[in-house]
This record gives sequence, C-alpha cells and structure tokens, in this order.
Amino acid sequence: MAKLLEGIKVLDFTNNVAGPATAVALADYGAEVIHIEKPVWGDDCRNYIPMADGISAMHMMINRSKKSMVMDLKDSDAIAVLKRMVADTDVIVESFRPGVMDRLGLGYEELSEINPRLIYCSISAFGQKGPYATRAGYDVIAQAFSGFIYYTGGESGTPTKICGAIGDYSSALNAYGQIMTALYYRERTGRGQHIDVSLARTLLWMNAYFDHIYTGEPRPRSGNHDYTLSPYGVFERSPEEYLVIGAVNVSTWKKLCEAMERPDLVTDPRYLTNDARVHHDDEVIAIIEDWLRSLPSVDEAARILDEAGVPNCKLNTMTDILEDPHVVENGWVTDIPPCTGVTSIPAAKAVVGLADFSGGEPVVGGAEALGESSVEILTKYGLSPEEAQKLEQRWSGK
Amino acid sequence: MAKLLEGIKVLDFTNNVAGPATAVALADYGAEVIHIEKPVWGDDCRNYIPMADGISAMHMMINRSKKSMVMDLKDSDAIAVLKRMVADTDVIVESFRPGVMDRLGLGYEELSEINPRLIYCSISAFGQKGPYATRAGYDVIAQAFSGFIYYTGGESGTPTKICGAIGDYSSALNAYGQIMTALYYRERTGRGQHIDVSLARTLLWMNAYFDHIYTGEPRPRSGNHDYTLSPYGVFERSPEEYLVIGAVNVSTWKKLCEAMERPDLVTDPRYLTNDARVHHDDEVIAIIEDWLRSLPSVDEAARILDEAGVPNCKLNTMTDILEDPHVVENGWVTDIPPCTGVTSIPAAKAVVGLADFSGGEPVVGGAEALGESSVEILTKYGLSPEEAQKLEQRWSGK
Repeated sequence: MAKLLEGIKVLDFTNNVAGPATAVALADYGAEVIHIEKPVWGDDCRNYIPMADGISAMHMMINRSKKSMVMDLKDSDAIAVLKRMVADTDVIVESFRPGVMDRLGLGYEELSEINPRLIYCSISAFGQKGPYATRAGYDVIAQAFSGFIYYTGGESGTPTKICGAIGDYSSALNAYGQIMTALYYRERTGRGQHIDVSLARTLLWMNAYFDHIYTGEPRPRSGNHDYTLSPYGVFERSPEEYLVIGAVNVSTWKKLCEAMERPDLVTDPRYLTNDARVHHDDEVIAIIEDWLRSLPSVDEAARILDEAGVPNCKLNTMTDILEDPHVVENGWVTDIPPCTGVTSIPAAKAVVGLADFSGGEPVVGGAEALGESSVEILTKYGLSPEEAQKLEQRWSGK
Repeated sequence: MAKLLEGIKVLDFTNNVAGPATAVALADYGAEVIHIEKPVWGDDCRNYIPMADGISAMHMMINRSKKSMVMDLKDSDAIAVLKRMVADTDVIVESFRPGVMDRLGLGYEELSEINPRLIYCSISAFGQKGPYATRAGYDVIAQAFSGFIYYTGGESGTPTKICGAIGDYSSALNAYGQIMTALYYRERTGRGQHIDVSLARTLLWMNAYFDHIYTGEPRPRSGNHDYTLSPYGVFERSPEEYLVIGAVNVSTWKKLCEAMERPDLVTDPRYLTNDARVHHDDEVIAIIEDWLRSLPSVDEAARILDEAGVPNCKLNTMTDILEDPHVVENGWVTDIPPCTGVTSIPAAKAVVGLADFSGGEPVVGGAEALGESSVEILTKYGLSPEEAQKLEQRWSGK
C-alpha cells in the first residue's frame, strides 16, 4: 500500500520529546527524516532510562525510521552544507529556544529566501512571541501553566502532575497537524510558511473550561469523579482494585442498575436524570462501590458490565496493555528493530502510526546510531568521501 | 490574511467532545463546516453545564464557526438530501459507534461511490476493528485503557483521573492531523480515503513507555516528581501553595543552587548529575521545599527563579490564565460572539486556532442555535422553500 508522505523531505532539528515525536509521526508515513543531532551526545532522548545494552528505549521508540546526522551548528561548514540541503527540503522542524535558529543563520527568513516553498515549524514551551517566549520550559511547566496540575487531583485535594508527557505528545500531534495543513496549503498555492506551535497553547486548547466567566463560580478540582456527569469516574473496590465506569445517559444507567440487580434504582427520583445523580453523586458512588465489594473481583464486575453493555474499563498497566486482546489483534503496539548493539531484547516496542488509513500504511523502521547516516548525506550534498569523513569526525567528536 | 482551508466543505456528523473539537479545528481555519445534529436535543455538548442564559458554554466554544442543521437520519428524505450534499463534500467526520453509519446508508463504501475524492474520518473509543470495536466509551474509559489513570497519582499512591478530557482533545488533534494528511494526499493523487481514529490508540501513542520490556521492572506510578529526572515536579510550600520547578541539566541545576543561595550544593557529589540527584530525590525535594518555606510566598520564589533563568511555573487556575500577561499579549484566549439569546455575558471564550501561521489566520466566529442553517442548506441543495420548511419542522421536532 501507498506511503502517504512518500517524497517529503524533513530536516529534524529537534531534541527531547515534542520535536522528535512530531518528526517520527512524519517518518511513520514515509517522509524521509534527517535528524540533525548535537556532537557527542545527540538527542537528549538517547540518555533516558530505561535502556537495553546501554541504548535508550525512548530513543529507539521516538527516533525510529529517521536518519541520524551529527553536526556542530556553530561550525560554518555545517551551515554551508545545511543551506544546500534546505534547497530540496520540504519541512524543517526545530525546537530550540526562540531566536537560536536565527542566530545560527538558520532562521525562517533566511532559509525561505533559499527555498520559498519551505515549511518551517518551530516548537517551543511558550511560543515565539510574548513575554515568556524565551523562557525555557519542560512538559511539566506547560502542565502547570495550562491548569492541568491545579485541576487534577484525587479525593485528598492535592494538585497532581499527570504521568507521562501530555504536553510534549499533544504538541507533537498539534505540530504534525499544522505541518500537514501547511503542506496541503502549499499544494494549492505554491507557498511555504512559518508555523509557531507551543506546549502552553496546545494544552490550553485542551483545557479551555472557563466556568467562572459563565457562573461566577470557580471550576472545582476534578477528583476521581466528575462534577457534571454521574456515574462517571474511578470506582474503588479496595485500595488495590478500581474500575472505571461511565453510565450517564438514561439507557446505560438503566443497564447498570439491572446489572447490579438494583432495578429499584431505575425509577428512584434521586437518580432519574444525570443532573439528579450529580446532586446525589456521593450516594451513587457508595452504591456502586458497595456492589463492587460484594463481588469476588473487579474482573468479575467488568465481565458483568460488558455483558450488560455498560461502558467500563479496568486501570490497565503497561503489562496489561501488551497482553490486551484488542491491542494485540489490532497490532497497536509494534515490534520495531532494536538499535545496533542491542542484543538483550529481540525487538523494541512502539505505537507506529496514529490511525488506520484505507489507502496507506505506516513504515516500521528502527532508530540509527548517532551519526550513522552523516557520511552518506554529506556525500549526497556534494562533498567528497574524504571531506565527508573529515567533517563527520570533527562533528561527532570522535 | 489567507484562510488556510478556504473552500473545504465538511459534513460534521459528530456529537460530544472529540468529534466536535476536530471539526472546530477545521472551521477555525476557514473550512465550511455543516454540523448535522439530532432532532430536539442536538449535540450533547448543548446540554453541558456551565450555561449562560440556558446556553451551554461548551457548545458556544466547541461548535463556533459551524452551521447547524437538524436531521433525523432515520428518515429516507434526510438520506436523499445528504447523498446530494456528499457529491460536493470534501470531508466527513463522524463519531457514531462502528457500523451505525453503514446501517444508515451513510457508510464510507456507499458514499465514496458517489464521491471518490471524499475523505471520511471515523472517530470512536476503540476504533473500527477488533474485539472492543463496538463498545461504547468515554474519555475516562480511554484514560483507563491507555494506562493514564493507573500511572497518575500523588504521594498517597492512589490512581488518579486526569482533569478535563485529554482523550477527547488529543484524539481531535490526531483526527485533525490525519484529515489534513488525507487532504494533502488527495491533492497529489486525486483519491479520497477512510481514516479510523480512536481515543484508545491516540492515548496509547502518548503513553508508550513499556519499561518492563527493557528492565524487567514495572514502571512506577508517577507521583508529583519523576523517576528519571531531578529536580522535576511539583514542590510544596504549604498544602495551598505549590511551585513547579524543572532543573535537570548541569547549568540549570547550578542556577537553581545559586538562586537558593546554596552554592555548596553545586559541587556536592550527591547532586552532581541528574542520575545522582534521581538517587537522592527525597533530599533534593526537601532542600527545595525548605527553601520555598523560607520565603514569604511562591510568587517570590517564582520571581527569584525567573531572574536566575530556572524553569518554573505556579499552578495556574483558569482565572490566573485569563489574567496572565503572556496569554493576554498573545491573544490565546479569544472573545467569541455568544449565541442568540445570551445576554448575561458580553462574549464567550475560546482558544481559537492551534498555532500561529505566517501566511494564514483563524476565523473568529460564534455557534449557531440548533437548526439555524437548516432551511438555507436544504434550499441550496434543490428543495423549494416550502419543502425545506416542512422538512425542517419535521426534523427539528417543532
């Protein structure tokens, strides 16, 4: 089947999570991605634990299907080669602090003169403009800025950081979509452009609930249930066992009551509508948790609810996910080739491709060692094998 | 400036959050989005609290810049009109349970025969294939499925639901990007296609840390700090006051030590590298929290860290966000026209547009009342004003 982005050439000047994840989404659909990495260390993702045989799992996952090239961007020879490369590049993705690429001579204004069709996506914590533009930031900073940490928190009321890197990954989804928007627009107009994506704005877009404007009341911390829907949340059987249940409309609430062998609740005016249940949410939660405790396990509760057609899900661990029949049958987690030098595991794991397309399928590739493609790319852009070798040694720090 | 998606016609058969958020991202860039809503109630988002004058804030935000059309999809007259509309539609977005659109006579196979250039994006909880395909699901179900709830949680160790609807919004970002991928591909090949996006797979892509494959050890619950980075997390001054700080590389750790007036820590071997600090994270946290308690407020700590160039952020509430100088100067939260009938507030609020483009800008529009554009659209597709009026009355339940 077709590769949807066949022929698209990407220069990936990114580091850490949001940028590499954007570029890997392009690589998954067949774009040729050249990852420009810093001397000696390369992408910071190469240094994250866990590792297999000294190679980072994160690197194997997030830099799959890319070519690795090492360059010292403070060396004018590197800038000269890059300017030749830009002439036939479709997309640049960069995640330096605002202003850095300009100072290196690799800013959008300068490169778009070489190639007006160039699409140039900058990803940063706070965006390219405004008072915080030059502040450094991490995923957790954007989580705090956008309200996610303040409003996430369990019964105790403590603000809670979200696991993983939702700011990085949602910004990668966003940057991917905006790059595709610009590629589409270029097909129609011939023109490239600069795109300014930030973690802070992306997470704000995902959390734009300004209740106080409408009601004068502040939005409450979310807890493990919901202040607008009931039953909807994480129900506890024991401190080790939970089940998520959502049954907010008339028909699923009825199914839930019947599954709990409590048909009396269906017509009880306290629980007749979602709004009524929200007002009596403590009682609704107690009824459901008592029912869970009356059963031998949450697995048994899940079985009963599945049969009754009530939306529910246990709290999967990553081990559960790899064994889940739906994940396995759909191939959502793919074995990818491990890096050279990794012998202790047969394959690395990644979620390759973000969706299924009827007319295209993703590429399953591995990640390269630092600078593995440097010489090949340098010679392709006009250097002799000797010059290429010399520059590669200078830039890799070998 | 240009509208990037000018001329693109979208039929939006979605309900609730992920689908409407996908379509609004298209509408923001100038696509013409016709939102097909169910009789009497319309999109469920119209019923969510908070409300202003009986109109849902969520509806005003998530259905902005769309045309509203009411249709009873079980009425053959509706299907007949829709098949005429499909002939000049570029994109369909639908979020019914898998199989429903097929049964209505609106499946991809059938509609792509009318219009082979059609791009048809299905959004569901678990995708179109596999054992859970027909299960109903909500955001919180996908959060549980993908591991987000199991791994999010504070010091007490309780699994924690994430505030807001990260499954819905990240899937909307994903669906938007894949629709743009298909539009780009269609420009090059002339062919449309079917896209299968799910909340479960999208969140799995964002949380693909399979540590146990590499180390044999399970991935720990995340808490308010990080098991691979230090200092990195939510630091407590008092149960009411927190500051997020990230200072994981050599230079920011040095800046943090100096800002805390603890230059002795810079050369202390226990804290020399990120790895060393991770092993002594409890001590690092205690040092930073003691420093926070020595100051009159977290605002003062933030001021000191800003000056020193150490990444930090307080836990913003939605009120803080609307007053934040960076948000205000960048116009990240926009006033949008309130719906007809809303008089108690001058404007609704939304984050319009997901990024800044050098060559295009978003459209700032309001949401329509249920069925506001029904008659206009029906007459455009060949019905007489009398017929259109009659169908509108039948379908709206008036």
